[in-house]
Amino acid sequence: MRTFGHFTGHGAAFYGELDAATQTVRALKQPFWLGLEHSDQAAIPLAQLKAGLPVAPSKIVAVGLNYHDHAKERNKPVPKSPLTWLESPASLLPNGGTIELPFPDHRIDYEAELCIVIGRRAKNVTAATAPEFIFGYTAANDVTDRTIQDAEGQFARAKGFDTFTPVGPFVYSGVDVSDLPVVLELNGETRQNGRTGEMIFKPAELLEFITKCTTLLPGDIIITGTPAGVGNLKPGDKVIVKIGSFAPLEANVKAA
Amino acid sequence: MRTFGHFTGHGAAFYGELDAATQTVRALKQPFWLGLEHSDQAAIPLAQLKAGLPVAPSKIVAVGLNYHDHAKERNKPVPKSPLTWLESPASLLPNGGTIELPFPDHRIDYEAELCIVIGRRAKNVTAATAPEFIFGYTAANDVTDRTIQDAEGQFARAKGFDTFTPVGPFVYSGVDVSDLPVVLELNGETRQNGRTGEMIFKPAELLEFITKCTTLLPGDIIITGTPAGVGNLKPGDKVIVKIGSFAPLEANVKAA
Repeated sequence: MRTFGHFTGHGAAFYGELDAATQTVRALKQPFWLGLEHSDQAAIPLAQLKAGLPVAPSKIVAVGLNYHDHAKERNKPVPKSPLTWLESPASLLPNGGTIELPFPDHRIDYEAELCIVIGRRAKNVTAATAPEFIFGYTAANDVTDRTIQDAEGQFARAKGFDTFTPVGPFVYSGVDVSDLPVVLELNGETRQNGRTGEMIFKPAELLEFITKCTTLLPGDIIITGTPAGVGNLKPGDKVIVKIGSFAPLEANVKAA
Repeated sequence: MRTFGHFTGHGAAFYGELDAATQTVRALKQPFWLGLEHSDQAAIPLAQLKAGLPVAPSKIVAVGLNYHDHAKERNKPVPKSPLTWLESPASLLPNGGTIELPFPDHRIDYEAELCIVIGRRAKNVTAATAPEFIFGYTAANDVTDRTIQDAEGQFARAKGFDTFTPVGPFVYSGVDVSDLPVVLELNGETRQNGRTGEMIFKPAELLEFITKCTTLLPGDIIITGTPAGVGNLKPGDKVIVKIGSFAPLEANVKAA
């Protein structure tokens, strides 16, 4: 397993690789999804850096109702093929950021999700070859204004408010995501506790389906749906997504 | 009125300004939505250049059911607030390109639309100040796999196949779009013939609504909905969108 992220500190902002053993970061010459050549810069202790948003996608593809128990709690039939839409890149929020609620009186839900990061241009990919096009994985929280989602029907707006897509803090390559815990903690209490193995459409199948439609570019991300247990966020909450042994993805919540 | 586009020729690819009187192009130092400083290069006759895709948005916001007569032909109620979603930037197609149909047996519809190009970072903009955030306008064809749209409910995939969003050929600033003809010709026959004045939510209202949710960046585009007359595209068709006195936006159609 290798660990990547975006870092600021020492007067610079850069994509880099985190050495888990030494907890130091080596800068890369370009975003990790484009190439893994280290710069000549010496390794910097992670403690001296701030980890920022580890992705900069040209598009965010979202997947809905991809866990049986979540479809059931939403009283929706399980889709016969993946239910997909796009979310605004402006909705991305780095680890430790604050989710801002423009309509705090609405029902605003958290949704813990495994996030795929694309590593190679992908069009008309088969499920069999899909793993070659995946760079790695991270955690995401697909925050949703449920009031707007149910009223409008289209999901992009309800899930696309600025700050509504926390992602990170790191992207992991060479990791087996076939059956990882997907956990959400709200103010220290576990609220979601699923497993990626329960996904209806697996990452490889999602890539086949999505790339029949659109060309995925290196750095694009796919958020793969949430298990059961979704619930309401309120100003003052602290919400954490934990996927397997990935570093936790934390966010605070306030009224906009 | 000023006219801008993206051009290739003379061994270069650049954004430039077209002088309508002399039909020559002057190169700009950066994309026109970021700045209008001309380069030192001499003007080049348009005839020696190929006009390409005039936009490179971080996101495409689409608006649905924004004309009464189109809502009626689709048997849908007129929405109380703008119905929006996002389309994939990979779906963009330059003027003269070929719309490729992965499912030619589906009902695939053309949709002629006025396209807004954003000129300034816009968040929580009011309708009164919205015009300051618009760089200009162009034509778009929001090609739609109606079979998939009606089956899946979410619109991003049905309208987001690669090549399904012809846009261009030029972007016009300083143009009054309050009541322009929106015409679509299929194989030489007029099939849509609306007016932007019939839009339910005008461009300024759309900006207010959209920027309550997401931050629009310079170069982002909004496709504003289609009037009545939508209909089926088949391989071999030639489809042209004409907005007011804008240069026509042409596309051919073939099976993928």
